[in-house]
Amino acid sequence: MLTRKMPHLSLSSRFQQSIAPDALRSYLAEFISTFFFVFSVVGSSMASKKLTPEAAGDTSGLITVAIANAFALSSAVYIAAGVSGGHVNPAVTFGMAVGGHISVPTALFYWLSQMLASVFASLILRVMTVSQRVPAYAIAEEMTGFGASMLEGLLTFVLVYTVYACSDPRRGPFGAIGPLVIGLTAGAGVLAAGPFSGGSMNPACAFGSAVIAGKFKNQAVYWVGPLIGAAVAGLVYDNVVFPPDDAADSIRGVSDGDGV
Amino acid sequence: MLTRKMPHLSLSSRFQQSIAPDALRSYLAEFISTFFFVFSVVGSSMASKKLTPEAAGDTSGLITVAIANAFALSSAVYIAAGVSGGHVNPAVTFGMAVGGHISVPTALFYWLSQMLASVFASLILRVMTVSQRVPAYAIAEEMTGFGASMLEGLLTFVLVYTVYACSDPRRGPFGAIGPLVIGLTAGAGVLAAGPFSGGSMNPACAFGSAVIAGKFKNQAVYWVGPLIGAAVAGLVYDNVVFPPDDAADSIRGVSDGDGV
Amino acid sequence: MLTRKMPHLSLSSRFQQSIAPDALRSYLAEFISTFFFVFSVVGSSMASKKLTPEAAGDTSGLITVAIANAFALSSAVYIAAGVSGGHVNPAVTFGMAVGGHISVPTALFYWLSQMLASVFASLILRVMTVSQRVPAYAIAEEMTGFGASMLEGLLTFVLVYTVYACSDPRRGPFGAIGPLVIGLTAGAGVLAAGPFSGGSMNPACAFGSAVIAGKFKNQAVYWVGPLIGAAVAGLVYDNVVFPPDDAADSIRGVSDGDGV
Amino acid sequence: MLTRKMPHLSLSSRFQQSIAPDALRSYLAEFISTFFFVFSVVGSSMASKKLTPEAAGDTSGLITVAIANAFALSSAVYIAAGVSGGHVNPAVTFGMAVGGHISVPTALFYWLSQMLASVFASLILRVMTVSQRVPAYAIAEEMTGFGASMLEGLLTFVLVYTVYACSDPRRGPFGAIGPLVIGLTAGAGVLAAGPFSGGSMNPACAFGSAVIAGKFKNQAVYWVGPLIGAAVAGLVYDNVVFPPDDAADSIRGVSDGDGV
Repeated sequence: MLTRKMPHLSLSSRFQQSIAPDALRSYLAEFISTFFFVFSVVGSSMASKKLTPEAAGDTSGLITVAIANAFALSSAVYIAAGVSGGHVNPAVTFGMAVGGHISVPTALFYWLSQMLASVFASLILRVMTVSQRVPAYAIAEEMTGFGASMLEGLLTFVLVYTVYACSDPRRGPFGAIGPLVIGLTAGAGVLAAGPFSGGSMNPACAFGSAVIAGKFKNQAVYWVGPLIGAAVAGLVYDNVVFPPDDAADSIRGVSDGDGV
Repeated sequence: MLTRKMPHLSLSSRFQQSIAPDALRSYLAEFISTFFFVFSVVGSSMASKKLTPEAAGDTSGLITVAIANAFALSSAVYIAAGVSGGHVNPAVTFGMAVGGHISVPTALFYWLSQMLASVFASLILRVMTVSQRVPAYAIAEEMTGFGASMLEGLLTFVLVYTVYACSDPRRGPFGAIGPLVIGLTAGAGVLAAGPFSGGSMNPACAFGSAVIAGKFKNQAVYWVGPLIGAAVAGLVYDNVVFPPDDAADSIRGVSDGDGV
Repeated sequence: MLTRKMPHLSLSSRFQQSIAPDALRSYLAEFISTFFFVFSVVGSSMASKKLTPEAAGDTSGLITVAIANAFALSSAVYIAAGVSGGHVNPAVTFGMAVGGHISVPTALFYWLSQMLASVFASLILRVMTVSQRVPAYAIAEEMTGFGASMLEGLLTFVLVYTVYACSDPRRGPFGAIGPLVIGLTAGAGVLAAGPFSGGSMNPACAFGSAVIAGKFKNQAVYWVGPLIGAAVAGLVYDNVVFPPDDAADSIRGVSDGDGV
Repeated sequence: MLTRKMPHLSLSSRFQQSIAPDALRSYLAEFISTFFFVFSVVGSSMASKKLTPEAAGDTSGLITVAIANAFALSSAVYIAAGVSGGHVNPAVTFGMAVGGHISVPTALFYWLSQMLASVFASLILRVMTVSQRVPAYAIAEEMTGFGASMLEGLLTFVLVYTVYACSDPRRGPFGAIGPLVIGLTAGAGVLAAGPFSGGSMNPACAFGSAVIAGKFKNQAVYWVGPLIGAAVAGLVYDNVVFPPDDAADSIRGVSDGDGV
């Protein structure tokens, strides 16, 4: 459900597939969803800064951004799930590629859509709010870049693990609430990491706001940790916690063909 | 599910249908749902202003209105879904009419119900709270009317796109949570746009509070952008992202007859 | 689902039924759920007063109580739904009795369980928190008792209407999220009415806290409006918006027998 | 669904089962979920303390921790439900063992995983945030240890009762939202008990943060009450409110074999 079909094909066939009409619709769906997600998250941060113009932010601002993450990601995943799988996040796409649930050429186009959408959302926010500055993600003064990246990576691990669980056909009776759970995971991550590393868990979101803000300091923090966390999540989920076993073989067979 | 049947009929037959008992029940359902939605959203804004009587509002007030939007819209859509489709918003009705999922005469009666409900909810709030002023939606000083309308239009685009996704029979296993996702989309929109354009995304809500507040400045902002956004959402969803294809023809056939 | 069977029987048979083991389990389920609901709502109000000891409350306190209402009512309805229908509220029980979905003797025992649970929850809160005062619901100075009761009645109308919608077998694909939607309706009501009439929508909750606080001023506000609102909701839902019609007769037949 | 199979076997067979590959995967799933839960809850408390460095905490901080509890517990239960049942809490495991839904050797390994995960999460938080203190749960000055333990016990009773309800195959049409309801129950508990006893409801969470903070004062409060509450919840649910009766025998038979 959350990923595209991936039959075993040559690289050139896979590239052909990645520019087929179905795939193009996926990229558009990722663009729309990522645009809305980044627009809400960065916009809510600008909104709370406008209302509480103190330097460091306050707890209400943290709640604002966390709720915006949870609400917007649930919606963004939901509206794209049927066509692109609802990644809305380069780390999720990377985790799905590592697990073999999306081909590399397609994944690259997903990334392109997500990055463009994030830059575009940040640009529109800057133009429309006229005098407001677009905030880039930043880490707390006392933290090291390594610590911040590890924090982002741990939370992204849980986020991608959750996406895997939500798209597993063996997940039982709780299938219907998947997009909500993905959103809540992101919201909980922001509440824990907000004042420390920002709580991005999404390289596209950090990239887009940095481009428009013109601040690339610590940008690597929001890429290295999350991509490693995403890759580990995919490997742990598929191979350790929920490995295909004899009893589940038939289900797994279907799963390999039609989704995660 | 979220829209009414729309067989191909003459205009006079359609008008006949739009005053049939089933249709009248739809209008009543839209009235009740829109009344509750506007009552909660405008009421929560009045409540936070009463508790924090500063000029500009604070971040807690933004959270209050955003949660009220999310909670009330989820409920309002849910309780009307079975009879009217749960539009609760003239922009949604417009987007459904543009996509051909509701006839024009019926849509006009939906609008009438929604506008009356909004004015009535604002009036009751004013009468019951005695000394409290009903707040009209307003745009931030530094913004232009065009920018504000574009902001409202973009968010309404996502809201109507979400309504389309929730009412698509091909939406897969996540069908059950539709009304919650619609509510969360509205809540995320308020968090991003609240201090800039108000985050209405609903012309009826902006109209009703303006009538009772007696302030029609910038009223066009809350109509032009949202209606354009809604129309584009319907066209993009039906024709670009989720077009009817060969594989889905049979489903689409049912869909065209019995709802979106 | 949300109400008990109600075959056509004599009053004495109905009384017999109302003290059968199944019925006793229902009363216990109502007791547990109402205890938790009142404990959370009144407790969250005491918690925010302890943290912000100013006279009038602030917006964060309003959010606290509204979220506690939404979260606790969702849970309370969910855990009792399978045995008692999850009323958790004398107004809901009254609205179900008016609609003929619960017999009068059984409804009276529901009321007794709900009232006892509310008094008990308030008592435990007072004893455990030692120095904290249990707050009774109160109306804003500028409001009349009539206005406050009308406000509580309107919101209770929507709450009971939502309970009817959630328990309607014709509600379509959104059945699974019923308890969440009931909770969200209550939360939205608190956000709108909190600083004006308190946003009780539940006579048991207002009664229990008043008993322990020793303040019965305006207690009638929390009974008259809500009970009228609940009765009207039941009648409007069953007879006007979702009347049994020819097409739905077979469904309705089942519904009349096994609970709305 | 939420518990593991428990056929009638000798103690040594049960121990054999408790170290089988399936069981080891359960412990890993409990570890991952408890790690994320404790990381979010303790992290959100540290985040709000960093933003509002006053002594006693404020209402926004209470909301932050309550939402983090609700969001993270929903996710943590969801991602582990398919393999370990999603306990994420020694009190839940204890309540399930008392009800006979998990064997004692397996339960002990669950406890070990949960405790290790909590200590590890608190440690990582301390290391990554550098200068931040990990907060241990504490009770309000005016409260007695007995009162605080009773408060924690009452809320844990409701939490474990909710877990039982969510895993009951007779729960009807609301099955899909179980993990969300469990999360909301925890969130409501924090809102009511936060400033009084902390609102832990989870001995592992209280233990892990105490180990890293080095403060074991009142640690018993977070064990005695919750374990008693959990045991009572299991006994009341299975034997009083939802006893197996003739009509439900066949369902119960399946339930005893394959989960609660």
